[in-house]
Amino acid sequence: MPTTLPPVSELAPGHRGVGFFLCTRKEERPTRAGSPFLLLTLQDRSGRVPAKLFDQAEKARELFGEGDFVKVEGVVEVYEGRRELLVAKIRRVDPERDREQGFREEDCVPCAPRPVDEMWAELRARIADVGHPGLRALLTRIAEDHGDRLRVWPAAMLVHHAYRGGLLEHVLQVARVADALAGLYGADRDLVFAGAMLHDIGKLQELQYERAASYSFEGTLVGHIALGLMMVREAAAGLASLDERTRTQVEHLVASHHGALELGSPVAPASVEAMILAVADDLDARLHQVRRAIAEDEGDGEFTGYQKRLGRVLLKPAGV
Amino acid sequence: MPTTLPPVSELAPGHRGVGFFLCTRKEERPTRAGSPFLLLTLQDRSGRVPAKLFDQAEKARELFGEGDFVKVEGVVEVYEGRRELLVAKIRRVDPERDREQGFREEDCVPCAPRPVDEMWAELRARIADVGHPGLRALLTRIAEDHGDRLRVWPAAMLVHHAYRGGLLEHVLQVARVADALAGLYGADRDLVFAGAMLHDIGKLQELQYERAASYSFEGTLVGHIALGLMMVREAAAGLASLDERTRTQVEHLVASHHGALELGSPVAPASVEAMILAVADDLDARLHQVRRAIAEDEGDGEFTGYQKRLGRVLLKPAGV
Amino acid sequence: MPTTLPPVSELAPGHRGVGFFLCTRKEERPTRAGSPFLLLTLQDRSGRVPAKLFDQAEKARELFGEGDFVKVEGVVEVYEGRRELLVAKIRRVDPERDREQGFREEDCVPCAPRPVDEMWAELRARIADVGHPGLRALLTRIAEDHGDRLRVWPAAMLVHHAYRGGLLEHVLQVARVADALAGLYGADRDLVFAGAMLHDIGKLQELQYERAASYSFEGTLVGHIALGLMMVREAAAGLASLDERTRTQVEHLVASHHGALELGSPVAPASVEAMILAVADDLDARLHQVRRAIAEDEGDGEFTGYQKRLGRVLLKPAGV
Amino acid sequence: MPTTLPPVSELAPGHRGVGFFLCTRKEERPTRAGSPFLLLTLQDRSGRVPAKLFDQAEKARELFGEGDFVKVEGVVEVYEGRRELLVAKIRRVDPERDREQGFREEDCVPCAPRPVDEMWAELRARIADVGHPGLRALLTRIAEDHGDRLRVWPAAMLVHHAYRGGLLEHVLQVARVADALAGLYGADRDLVFAGAMLHDIGKLQELQYERAASYSFEGTLVGHIALGLMMVREAAAGLASLDERTRTQVEHLVASHHGALELGSPVAPASVEAMILAVADDLDARLHQVRRAIAEDEGDGEFTGYQKRLGRVLLKPAGV
Amino acid sequence: MPTTLPPVSELAPGHRGVGFFLCTRKEERPTRAGSPFLLLTLQDRSGRVPAKLFDQAEKARELFGEGDFVKVEGVVEVYEGRRELLVAKIRRVDPERDREQGFREEDCVPCAPRPVDEMWAELRARIADVGHPGLRALLTRIAEDHGDRLRVWPAAMLVHHAYRGGLLEHVLQVARVADALAGLYGADRDLVFAGAMLHDIGKLQELQYERAASYSFEGTLVGHIALGLMMVREAAAGLASLDERTRTQVEHLVASHHGALELGSPVAPASVEAMILAVADDLDARLHQVRRAIAEDEGDGEFTGYQKRLGRVLLKPAGV
Amino acid sequence: MPTTLPPVSELAPGHRGVGFFLCTRKEERPTRAGSPFLLLTLQDRSGRVPAKLFDQAEKARELFGEGDFVKVEGVVEVYEGRRELLVAKIRRVDPERDREQGFREEDCVPCAPRPVDEMWAELRARIADVGHPGLRALLTRIAEDHGDRLRVWPAAMLVHHAYRGGLLEHVLQVARVADALAGLYGADRDLVFAGAMLHDIGKLQELQYERAASYSFEGTLVGHIALGLMMVREAAAGLASLDERTRTQVEHLVASHHGALELGSPVAPASVEAMILAVADDLDARLHQVRRAIAEDEGDGEFTGYQKRLGRVLLKPAGV
Repeated sequence: MPTTLPPVSELAPGHRGVGFFLCTRKEERPTRAGSPFLLLTLQDRSGRVPAKLFDQAEKARELFGEGDFVKVEGVVEVYEGRRELLVAKIRRVDPERDREQGFREEDCVPCAPRPVDEMWAELRARIADVGHPGLRALLTRIAEDHGDRLRVWPAAMLVHHAYRGGLLEHVLQVARVADALAGLYGADRDLVFAGAMLHDIGKLQELQYERAASYSFEGTLVGHIALGLMMVREAAAGLASLDERTRTQVEHLVASHHGALELGSPVAPASVEAMILAVADDLDARLHQVRRAIAEDEGDGEFTGYQKRLGRVLLKPAGV
Repeated sequence: MPTTLPPVSELAPGHRGVGFFLCTRKEERPTRAGSPFLLLTLQDRSGRVPAKLFDQAEKARELFGEGDFVKVEGVVEVYEGRRELLVAKIRRVDPERDREQGFREEDCVPCAPRPVDEMWAELRARIADVGHPGLRALLTRIAEDHGDRLRVWPAAMLVHHAYRGGLLEHVLQVARVADALAGLYGADRDLVFAGAMLHDIGKLQELQYERAASYSFEGTLVGHIALGLMMVREAAAGLASLDERTRTQVEHLVASHHGALELGSPVAPASVEAMILAVADDLDARLHQVRRAIAEDEGDGEFTGYQKRLGRVLLKPAGV
Repeated sequence: MPTTLPPVSELAPGHRGVGFFLCTRKEERPTRAGSPFLLLTLQDRSGRVPAKLFDQAEKARELFGEGDFVKVEGVVEVYEGRRELLVAKIRRVDPERDREQGFREEDCVPCAPRPVDEMWAELRARIADVGHPGLRALLTRIAEDHGDRLRVWPAAMLVHHAYRGGLLEHVLQVARVADALAGLYGADRDLVFAGAMLHDIGKLQELQYERAASYSFEGTLVGHIALGLMMVREAAAGLASLDERTRTQVEHLVASHHGALELGSPVAPASVEAMILAVADDLDARLHQVRRAIAEDEGDGEFTGYQKRLGRVLLKPAGV
Repeated sequence: MPTTLPPVSELAPGHRGVGFFLCTRKEERPTRAGSPFLLLTLQDRSGRVPAKLFDQAEKARELFGEGDFVKVEGVVEVYEGRRELLVAKIRRVDPERDREQGFREEDCVPCAPRPVDEMWAELRARIADVGHPGLRALLTRIAEDHGDRLRVWPAAMLVHHAYRGGLLEHVLQVARVADALAGLYGADRDLVFAGAMLHDIGKLQELQYERAASYSFEGTLVGHIALGLMMVREAAAGLASLDERTRTQVEHLVASHHGALELGSPVAPASVEAMILAVADDLDARLHQVRRAIAEDEGDGEFTGYQKRLGRVLLKPAGV
Repeated sequence: MPTTLPPVSELAPGHRGVGFFLCTRKEERPTRAGSPFLLLTLQDRSGRVPAKLFDQAEKARELFGEGDFVKVEGVVEVYEGRRELLVAKIRRVDPERDREQGFREEDCVPCAPRPVDEMWAELRARIADVGHPGLRALLTRIAEDHGDRLRVWPAAMLVHHAYRGGLLEHVLQVARVADALAGLYGADRDLVFAGAMLHDIGKLQELQYERAASYSFEGTLVGHIALGLMMVREAAAGLASLDERTRTQVEHLVASHHGALELGSPVAPASVEAMILAVADDLDARLHQVRRAIAEDEGDGEFTGYQKRLGRVLLKPAGV
Repeated sequence: MPTTLPPVSELAPGHRGVGFFLCTRKEERPTRAGSPFLLLTLQDRSGRVPAKLFDQAEKARELFGEGDFVKVEGVVEVYEGRRELLVAKIRRVDPERDREQGFREEDCVPCAPRPVDEMWAELRARIADVGHPGLRALLTRIAEDHGDRLRVWPAAMLVHHAYRGGLLEHVLQVARVADALAGLYGADRDLVFAGAMLHDIGKLQELQYERAASYSFEGTLVGHIALGLMMVREAAAGLASLDERTRTQVEHLVASHHGALELGSPVAPASVEAMILAVADDLDARLHQVRRAIAEDEGDGEFTGYQKRLGRVLLKPAGV
């Protein structure tokens, strides 16, 4: 009986064995010799890995599709400097039978490193700490009305925090950063926290998410900033404790959080709180990319390879 | 008894007499010789003119303020190539007494060249022509709920259509342009008209307007695009005939009508209808500026002076 | 005897048979297994399709070249989400013999959907409608001197209207759009039509065109705007009815039609007519791309794939 | 005997009396009536105020010059919405005589709100906390070699922290912000503090500063980033405990702290520490401007006037 | 009898006397005290100086106009750091009478430092040196057909070489620079010289120039690059020795000499010769500005004041 | 015994034989048929050529590595329009044995066309010609301290002069260009030469170079401009004849030589000398690319293929 493959995050050249994955991409490509092969992306809780299947691809392609959980046997090789899994066997998971062999759906979906329940508890505690009654009421209502999604949603399709619970992870870290800055600059900490919690709330409607994320119809056409504003306005309706001035300031935080018009905000930050929020959001998104790029780099030099999106190479910490 | 001055749009050097105006700016400036003078902006229905008062400025400044209707006696001179009214006497209007001498409030507020009732009737007729029941219901509700403002609002503070009825004038011309383009490219004319009517609807909340326009609190902090989206969403609530897909397309038209992120739209136009609307809006705003610049140019050359906002000089039509 | 393949615009996976095409690209590529294959582009009147030949490529490559009409037998497959023709047999057309089997040169060249003669008649009618005698004389002379090319030229190599008659199709639509806008803004319709007809006239020298388009020597070095200006200047020589002021305005329309210096116009539009022309040209070029992208998209989602040149996805009309 | 004027930061229209100032600008301007007047800038510890002298300007201009301490008698007026001091009498300070009347040099130089000794003690304490021996040695040496200047230098000529002790104030706040961020992202806190302390160290050579700041010869020609790098390199020479890798990382922090090439950094931030430093520096500079703009705004609206450098109006906190 | 004033380039504060000038600007401005004064620009061969007339301005304004030669008596003062002439008496020149006192028209028009005949002889010699018969014929014809203007035209209205003979001076220096570069890079020296001589030839039509320069109708609407191309095309007509390839290369040099589309060239330089020409033209225009800014700077610091157009201060050579 | 292959710069399709090369790239790629092949870059003194090995790749890959000198037998083919060497046999060079067959290390490293000793002599002669004693001393010291590297270093990794002696070749040509320009504009020729010699001196530390170039640790983190400034400052220490003003001007030349902040210079050129140097450096780098692109183009059209880095096609000289 074949060995079990380690999690994706630990796969290294030479590893050989069996594993369960979610297949998020399946494309057929003809080789130049005339026969087809399959180009796949496989993922588990810890990450994604490209895979290829050359033998009997025509037959194999009928056995599963994109979005299916699959059982795979193969070996890890390096191709153009990146790991990939050379697949020997692959088939769709049979939930009943395979559960006995250790298959669990939740192990095949990338997710935030910290448990969702723990993050959710932290968010609720922070809400409870808000001193302004109207803001607290607003945030509580949103947590209750949208909690199902907010607990599990990713923060993006690709760029950063693109996994289960990623939005919540991002929201909490932005809240921490923005709170520290608010303290150092005497800004209104309640407002700043409200902005941190709500700035990306429109992503709950902009993205569709079941095993994987994609843009919704209204997400593509209206975008998460405008959708978020409408969610805030709806949640604020009828909250007696929330005065109009405060609500408008919250809306300003959501509207301006990209920091500049050319980045998609219809207005630029016009208060100390809004500037702090925009900086915290941008910094967290960028550092998340940086740290992932460093973690995923497999070269042995002092710098990562060239990071196209950031336009530079990155220094790897000495101890990494 | 002194002559009556002609309307502002016809004032020319040498004109001398009495007139009624709204004073929209009053600043005191010390002359270098030590004495103060007053720098004013006066307006009537047809336009605005700068004015100065040198004699007994200290005494005169108590007699009226910004936002007051005033009775003025003076003479038109040219200063640095521009007309200005040199004021001999000025006082606040006494509505009762001055009405007998011809003062009427509505004559002192700049407004669109075409009567409001006529424009409003055209808008209502266009709404009635909309074939899609849900869209017609949406537009009808907005016309009813916001008609009071929509009839009289200006389209901007300064740049274009910045006068009573200017928003309605702009909306109707954008509707005409966009309808012509929709016809030539087989686009959905109902959608395009809805976009034309609603694209700037948020200006009803972004601007405050009584005798003059200024930005509101939420206008400054959220902007007319997001405010307009929330107004559309609110008006759409409970309209059984308006399906969600169509509503989202209308929202897309409003959201993308500036044509690009760096111009303040949170999303770029993604449909033929949205591209047509963005072009129609931009063209109308620009041509309004161009035609005003040509009309107001007082030089006798073939070109206007340098237009800073447009970055060029403009060719004056041969017959002008 | 094998079936006849449908026109390129209707080819779908699984179609198998024989057809006549123009081969506009032939590149040899070694497969990784060591043997060569041929990468082709085949076109007929209705469009272009990529094709590949794997069997006996070395032998086949001698049998035809780029620019040859070819007879092809093959089957349509899907590769990376796009149709391509897998070629089984291919040879150069033998005009005499193949004509009997239905080969016609003109069926192998992509061309505008509307017949050239019909478009040409519309252009001549519009010229006849021009009221200004000097402009009418100028346009008539150009139609006569350059008619041979103007009837059949493409408007571009790649981006839009890149087929036989594309320039004329583009000119007529720009004329319609610009005329509608001129009517709505009281612009000089004769001038606007002259601009629409002549704005891209330099393309007759910028592009070489026989079965396919390419840049000419002077097209690459001088560009169609400057070439067009020189053609207008030459055609205007000796036209007594054309005053210098009008000729210069026409030249301005040609010179400024890209709308801005960074887009290649040596001067920016300085008249209402020039602004209208620049908007009409840009809108028609963009909407042509948009409509083609929507027509060619083969996915089944509500949006097209990402359009690199436009920087966005596009909403497909509900009925498409 | 005339009243004593309050500090500049508290001067309000109507205040009348005598005060001691440093005159940092003296320009003579002819009035249009033919006679000259003097345009002055006067400053004390708390700020700057424009001043004008109309009476006997010709005689007065001989009595003092730019850079002189002056005794002034006058009254505060408002001109174009800004305070200015209308000077009745002015003469150069006579240190001996005027000291009895309360003149003190240090009261006439704008300086940071917090006492220099207190700030300096905080800096030394932070240096002592650095764990990395080489870094601590480097920072200690720089504090010792450049302490005279570092204690009192301004951070800029105009934009932010442009007063005595401003550089130290800025350095300490950047250190606080960067330390908080380093904690939240697991960055190297010693390195981050070194960057915060040294990022603007080149300003000690870029700016000349006695009673007021100006650019030095080498400051204009080489700039503070390159000058700072050379100061670090020099201070590092012979420090056995400072390895080359660490020194290079410190140099990277200094070199990249403007965050992007177009902002004057010869390299972009390539480590988590460098990104944090660039964000902290930019945020502190911007928020310093924002808070000063809000503090100095004298209007009574909810927003400040338009801030040219920031390109927007700013929301004033409710309690201000 | 009053002293004669020195040439404008040598006027210094305190100079007092009489001189002849061309008045190129005359504007009336009311002083705040109510009376008008005249703001003038006076020029002679060596430069321009601002002037003001306060006494009896109303009477004086009738005595001359813009474009008139004037006789002036006055004294030089400094206002806001710049020289200006305070006018005591002014009247229009009476050519007959004043000629006896030394008035000569040509002394009142700013012109290039080197005599026109000498520059012209150099140009003709360079043309004679061209080895390529077709190019030599083309340049000879242009020198003959346009020599009247080419000898005296300015190169610009304001920015650089904005005086009589300035275009010729610029052309010769660009020719020298480009020739040196062509030698160092093995480029075609005949082509490079043709480009240097012709690159700005369209300025002969873009600018109107009698005593002062202004934009012509076609200059404003078509621009000097396109006008120059049409002049080259016209001059090339019928020159048997000029092959089409060479003519097109010359046209490319003219078309691309601004170096980039956003600078107004419809095509970018595509040959070594075109790149050299664009660099030579840009360098000469910039260095002319730099050297004039340094020459005109009247401060005593090591740097000039801030140069707005160049966006920096400039180091003055030690010996200046 | 097989023929000897010609140098890389002369390799043409059909050439077949044996040669010695440096292998600078070796990547293994799986073919779609399942077997691996090797993708190589081989270089000799005259240039680089891509190569592929399909037969027995697995075995061959053990026989040599990147950075090894190799003996190769193969044939030149054309793939996608570019030459490549199809390798039949390859092995690591055995220095002793192969030397007899003509192998020499120095023949396998790309280098400048002109002999290093000749270039070095020219540099020393130019240094000796410098009139300013302090500058001469500075340049002499740098030539002595850094001569080992300066003689052989490349000027870049990829873009221009990326071969042995390339930096020296670039320095000498920049010196020639800048000297010619300095002569034509009366600039300080000693300073300009110092700038030409030192502008890229930091590349000696930015790049590592043995058989091939790569970025060093401090090169990546600090960049060659700042490194060069520190080298100049170090070399200047203790030179009695070098006054501080002159040293700062040299530093300005180094600091500003990229011409603008967004190109990586921390300050913009502020003197005639600095502007000349920046132009000379940019021109030489660009023309080097242009001439190489023209030399390497193998098409037979009048233009090269599209040059991505330059954003255009290039005209090939008629005789090439």
